[in-house]
Amino acid sequence: MYERIKGFRDFYPTEMQARRQVFDEVESTVRGYGFREIGTPAMEDAQLYIDKSGEEIVDELYSFEDKGGRHVALTPELTPTVARMVVAKQQELSKPIKWFSTRPFWRYEEPQQGRFREFYQTNVDIFGSAEPSADAEILAVAADMLRNLGLDAEDFEFRVSHRDILGGLLEAFEGEIATQQAIRAVDKSAKIETAEYHDLLVDAGLSYEQAREFDDLLDVDEDELDELIEFAGTDRIDEAVTNLRNVLAAAEDFGVREYCDLSLETARGLDYYTGVVFECFDSTGEVSRAVFGGGRYDDLIESFGGQPTPAVGFAPGDATLSLLLQRAGVWPEEELSTDYYVLQVGDTRPVAARIARELREAGNVVETDVADRSFGAQMNYADSVNAETVVIVGERDLENDEVTLKDMESGDQVQAPVSEFPGEHDRPTIEEFE
Amino acid sequence: MYERIKGFRDFYPTEMQARRQVFDEVESTVRGYGFREIGTPAMEDAQLYIDKSGEEIVDELYSFEDKGGRHVALTPELTPTVARMVVAKQQELSKPIKWFSTRPFWRYEEPQQGRFREFYQTNVDIFGSAEPSADAEILAVAADMLRNLGLDAEDFEFRVSHRDILGGLLEAFEGEIATQQAIRAVDKSAKIETAEYHDLLVDAGLSYEQAREFDDLLDVDEDELDELIEFAGTDRIDEAVTNLRNVLAAAEDFGVREYCDLSLETARGLDYYTGVVFECFDSTGEVSRAVFGGGRYDDLIESFGGQPTPAVGFAPGDATLSLLLQRAGVWPEEELSTDYYVLQVGDTRPVAARIARELREAGNVVETDVADRSFGAQMNYADSVNAETVVIVGERDLENDEVTLKDMESGDQVQAPVSEFPGEHDRPTIEEFE
Repeated sequence: MYERIKGFRDFYPTEMQARRQVFDEVESTVRGYGFREIGTPAMEDAQLYIDKSGEEIVDELYSFEDKGGRHVALTPELTPTVARMVVAKQQELSKPIKWFSTRPFWRYEEPQQGRFREFYQTNVDIFGSAEPSADAEILAVAADMLRNLGLDAEDFEFRVSHRDILGGLLEAFEGEIATQQAIRAVDKSAKIETAEYHDLLVDAGLSYEQAREFDDLLDVDEDELDELIEFAGTDRIDEAVTNLRNVLAAAEDFGVREYCDLSLETARGLDYYTGVVFECFDSTGEVSRAVFGGGRYDDLIESFGGQPTPAVGFAPGDATLSLLLQRAGVWPEEELSTDYYVLQVGDTRPVAARIARELREAGNVVETDVADRSFGAQMNYADSVNAETVVIVGERDLENDEVTLKDMESGDQVQAPVSEFPGEHDRPTIEEFE
Repeated sequence: MYERIKGFRDFYPTEMQARRQVFDEVESTVRGYGFREIGTPAMEDAQLYIDKSGEEIVDELYSFEDKGGRHVALTPELTPTVARMVVAKQQELSKPIKWFSTRPFWRYEEPQQGRFREFYQTNVDIFGSAEPSADAEILAVAADMLRNLGLDAEDFEFRVSHRDILGGLLEAFEGEIATQQAIRAVDKSAKIETAEYHDLLVDAGLSYEQAREFDDLLDVDEDELDELIEFAGTDRIDEAVTNLRNVLAAAEDFGVREYCDLSLETARGLDYYTGVVFECFDSTGEVSRAVFGGGRYDDLIESFGGQPTPAVGFAPGDATLSLLLQRAGVWPEEELSTDYYVLQVGDTRPVAARIARELREAGNVVETDVADRSFGAQMNYADSVNAETVVIVGERDLENDEVTLKDMESGDQVQAPVSEFPGEHDRPTIEEFE
């Protein structure tokens, strides 16, 4: 009768159970590095995005006028919001500020594999350090997260680039070049034909010859970075190359260098990035899109009216991450788990309720009948929620002061004295009463 | 420069830490009863609310036309969404269906104490049981949740009522009475003057005399419920009173009867409730609004085009729940916690990184310097995040193959062999190296 809106998703318990495991592992990894959880609004002044995000995001905004005449937008990304929050309490917060959160975002895009209009991201950011070790900690926590999810170096790679190398190279060409526009062209280069890519570079102010030369320059290996310094001959390139090398050296110390490949063709779409940027890819190429990305955005806080505050972060999204985990065969099993089902036969609710309560107090997941159903119907239900043990509380058993425990895997049953069940046992199995 | 939108909240890490503890306790309680987590969209077809919610909610909708011309609304409550989800998979889902989720909702209301335009709710529902034990399980999980949060019978009470008793009484009066409108008047009665309340009842079709009589009838004790049956003389009232008594008897079996008081003046604002309804109140009255509420809504699924499916649920919200917990002095402490800070003096990053990594792998929260700061600045930072132990990795210590452990509470320090730290210790303290 009513339809879910296109591009939005419902998650039923079995799938949600797997998603929760993944979210928990992601959050537990970032908490281990001392990132602290924050909570953020789903809506901001639309102007925040019009001023601060790339035009692509603005075209995809869910924006509208609220009942108070405000021009508001559903948050399409978290970075402008955290920037606003940092600026609001910049004096009180001890630096570096290390924050994370997991929540939905909204963009009006055409849904496709790994892309939805409502998607979830865990945003992880460090504010207040310009040091290469901050960039490297972001790479490290990202790699650790994937390792803790069951992936290894065969499964994923981080393509690492540097915005200032791209900007510094563009600056070294003669002519009036729109740097951001050219960088957006680089960001698209992997998805389009070379000719189209060069056309976009020409639109940004390069000649065709310069476009080809620029394209060639980006195709360097790590040991050829000095060629870029020679080409441009500017301090900016020199510093950018040094910074990139220092980040990779710190990544080595942090044990994640093996996941990082130099890839100057990686640019990231958003305008606010300034230094090192990276994208995580499926090493097998089966997941063809970037799984997630991140990078340094040192100017954003100041542009929000704050004191100059360097920043670096990354943000894995649920849809592409699940594609990678599924491809690698490490997506959690989509099934429910239940420790006990307390089955009632006849008018045994007071005893069944007491047993269920005590088992719950010991930390177990316990269901009992709330629908006045038959033995068979309760047994089927217990099976459908994968109950490990069924505690049968029957009128006849109770006459003998007993309950029956049934192990649902083996089918074995034993009797247990009702007064001793669960007793001292936190998680009693049939073995303890045999 | 940019302002947060009125009625929306930012949560910084210290406050978020306390909120997370409360959310976790709430969710762990409901998981213990076998409720399963679901994930739901932030947006629905606006028509869903226009058709299914009370007019109050429709007036408060954040609704707009999306870029595809859909008339959409941010979800102001979860019930219509879960009803849509139940209908979509009614055949496959084993009953009873027991679902929960925690997430934000949005209503354009005037913000005041305990009320925001963006608020969080944990919705907990059972579908597929009309039995009194399902209503009682909802009362039980609600009470357990509050007990697990540190509250007791001195702190809160559930005011329990029954929509069919209210409807049955209204039906027994002569004249054309708009039942839903009269019930909405009952819902408002505690917040307005008696004269105004009676005016609202008259607007709904009662005479002033009937309004006074109705008002008197609602003021019954539990042992006077038979008077209502006598007054109306209908099966409907008879069955409603029996149902209410059975729910309270089941609540007794579930160990939560002591929290339940009969209060027919409690009605709940939403039109879709059908049977038992309840509201949780602060026993001291210091928090003057209902903390949360719930009840039975047996007709909703069918009205969504599903098979007739009885349902009952409740939904604690973050803002009022935190008022109650704060009033009772059991709101968690708002402070960060950190197990280790690994402090670097000089060029010791490779060793510091190895130690941090191993401590994290053992499950600890570990920070290390990513800002190239002085000993003093790192020590201040470690203090600001409440680090329990600081591991000082200094160049001179390393020449002796040692690191220094400092207990931040006592200030005591010991040396530990770098090759054995952390070694086999999952959570080493200075005692282990003295």
